[in-house]
Amino acid sequence: MHGTAELIFTGDELLRGDIVNTNQAFLGECLLDVGLFTTHALSVTDDLDAIASALQAALIRRPDVVVISGGLGPTEDDLTREAVSSALGRPLEHHDELLEQIRTRFVQLGMNMGDSNRKQALIPEGATAVPFIGTAPGFWLVSGDTLVAALPGVPRELATMWTETVEPLLKSRLSASGAKDGRPVLGVIVRRLRVYGIGESTLAELLGDIPWRGHGVDIGTRAALDGLTLILRAQPTAEAHATLARIEEQVRDILGTKIYGTGDADLAGVVGGLLRDRGLTVATAESCTGGLVAKRLTDIPGSSDYFLGGVVAYSDRLKTAMLDVEPALLDERGAVSEEVAAAMAVGACRRLGADCAISTTGIAGPGGGSVDKPVGLVYVGTTLGGDVQVRSFTMFRSREEIRIRTAQTALDVFRRRFLDPLDR
Amino acid sequence: MHGTAELIFTGDELLRGDIVNTNQAFLGECLLDVGLFTTHALSVTDDLDAIASALQAALIRRPDVVVISGGLGPTEDDLTREAVSSALGRPLEHHDELLEQIRTRFVQLGMNMGDSNRKQALIPEGATAVPFIGTAPGFWLVSGDTLVAALPGVPRELATMWTETVEPLLKSRLSASGAKDGRPVLGVIVRRLRVYGIGESTLAELLGDIPWRGHGVDIGTRAALDGLTLILRAQPTAEAHATLARIEEQVRDILGTKIYGTGDADLAGVVGGLLRDRGLTVATAESCTGGLVAKRLTDIPGSSDYFLGGVVAYSDRLKTAMLDVEPALLDERGAVSEEVAAAMAVGACRRLGADCAISTTGIAGPGGGSVDKPVGLVYVGTTLGGDVQVRSFTMFRSREEIRIRTAQTALDVFRRRFLDPLDR
Repeated sequence: MHGTAELIFTGDELLRGDIVNTNQAFLGECLLDVGLFTTHALSVTDDLDAIASALQAALIRRPDVVVISGGLGPTEDDLTREAVSSALGRPLEHHDELLEQIRTRFVQLGMNMGDSNRKQALIPEGATAVPFIGTAPGFWLVSGDTLVAALPGVPRELATMWTETVEPLLKSRLSASGAKDGRPVLGVIVRRLRVYGIGESTLAELLGDIPWRGHGVDIGTRAALDGLTLILRAQPTAEAHATLARIEEQVRDILGTKIYGTGDADLAGVVGGLLRDRGLTVATAESCTGGLVAKRLTDIPGSSDYFLGGVVAYSDRLKTAMLDVEPALLDERGAVSEEVAAAMAVGACRRLGADCAISTTGIAGPGGGSVDKPVGLVYVGTTLGGDVQVRSFTMFRSREEIRIRTAQTALDVFRRRFLDPLDR
Repeated sequence: MHGTAELIFTGDELLRGDIVNTNQAFLGECLLDVGLFTTHALSVTDDLDAIASALQAALIRRPDVVVISGGLGPTEDDLTREAVSSALGRPLEHHDELLEQIRTRFVQLGMNMGDSNRKQALIPEGATAVPFIGTAPGFWLVSGDTLVAALPGVPRELATMWTETVEPLLKSRLSASGAKDGRPVLGVIVRRLRVYGIGESTLAELLGDIPWRGHGVDIGTRAALDGLTLILRAQPTAEAHATLARIEEQVRDILGTKIYGTGDADLAGVVGGLLRDRGLTVATAESCTGGLVAKRLTDIPGSSDYFLGGVVAYSDRLKTAMLDVEPALLDERGAVSEEVAAAMAVGACRRLGADCAISTTGIAGPGGGSVDKPVGLVYVGTTLGGDVQVRSFTMFRSREEIRIRTAQTALDVFRRRFLDPLDR
């Protein structure tokens, strides 16, 4: 049903663990979007024979495309040009106009071009240079039925060269071959539904009865600290498209308001949209999250339209001084309590002059827990239209995870205040 | 000089880009710590033949170890047991005691064990089960001179099983074989130096004259938004150890206070240590970073000893209301100015009752820039002992990168206030 792709990454830094390979996930997702499934993604040491062997092994499996990333710089460890040349028996050729482009780029960047950069103007016989944004040109060529594209390892440069050159090239090749041998032309239809408030196993149970297998639709889940993403993919046929739409409807019936958005939606952005639509302003009052809720809200460009500001009241004294929480309340109930969460939210509204507020107080750990109030106990307060509500949660694992989940939960609790009471 | 390792990751989610493979970097680094360099790390689709072929191809290169991660669950996509069995011609055998352990684990977790979990009690002939923490047992066996270890894909489970079982096993195998064939026993000595305030190319220039090549020492750099990490690695011989110490000394002479710590040091933790040692408290006053500086400070466990709290004054009105910034100053100089950064820091100290303060104001973009005050212009204010100082910076790229760099820069500027004036 799918065509296939293979990825080869060169660079000892990937194998030493100096950096995490984010290009693999990026390209895997991009390739699926044009209907190609990646079967092998190999990180290989900076060794000419190892890279050349990897390319030959990939070509034997006859994928539609092999993308090689990295090894296009000027140093002696940059061996992709030589490895492709050696694997395919295509001598490297010097291209004057490419050298000129590299020279111009160095001038633009105000940098000196070294002698070593001259070798970046070499590409294998029959290859075409890919326009570049850094100082490393890429190239592509066709070997058998396979498109071989060599791109830099720098994620920004790779992404630009993928989008501007390789993707269009691949689409046109796949359309042409699809027309020829009758396989589905290209382009998987993808819907991403963002879900918060349930775990992966609950999600699997809830959706267990939806009959999607064998209908040209594929369902995947991505779990992260900020929730789940349900990924629906369908072949680009009218039938599969209709099936996908029907399945999405069933999923939405089951999950309801647990779905907070689609695509790359961010809960902070969703909350921002709700506030903007209603012309409301918000303030934050944070203890255990230490500024993370405010940070999340201000991640969104234009958030100054509705976010006024916040107070991080980490010490009890500041909960009183900056948010008017009664000292008696702190003494009697403790800083981590329903009553203090409510008082912080109310205080933030009043002191910062906002229409509504979000507050957090809890025990992020690793120290500070007790039998009554264990590490992970968190209260989230929200005010909306003068009405204050508090909910409590128990979070797990590390301090970092507890804080990230608390901030995301606070945003979700606040979002739910805007829903129909029956849907909350 | 090094022994070698290979990694095989199964799981279509890695190839579809649903998740980024962090296990690869984790294992690559762990393997180097026992003296093994990873030459190949392959992510391969959930296909029995593909996984088996990948293992056979790896074994032909005769590495010291092959770690296979993923594919140990109970579903029909979990094929690692079958693939190892098929690749090595070792039939799967049922282990009663393993089944019992799995059953016990399910009871502990309060979950029902399904029939499909029974297959998790199968491991290849001659293999030993690895004690597990989730519900998926791993296993290891020896094929030729290579240790083959199969571990789950869940990062926490993989890390525990690596540390508790595979690493000790590998160390004892490597010591034994090292004694036999005379190669350096094992264990690379690693020093990580954390650097802030210079770029990768400047670092390379500064260190260019240090003669480390050919002395059993390897220098690597990891670049991230929070700065550079210089990684020095040496073979565990007395000579290489001495060379590493000498090189570290030279590096420290050249970089001086640009090195803010070693290992996994976090600038927020370094700043926290400086405050704690002196018995000082700090407060934050943030505009463009929107809470991120406070979040960074409170990432550190125990930060309540010195961090009192902060104000996120996103709107100009709150800069006045919460931090006593004169409205006239905001009118005349603008919110993004040296004067307002200074007033915010002074106001935070006074209003929050702290000994010192850190303030940020700038244009994070993408909108809001002008010719005079472009996107990326940032002011950082600090007060220490009643003395306020402001520095300005120009940050590049996305809103996210500008904010992350600004927070890290603010922490570094504050750290430098504690250094000898001659070193700043």
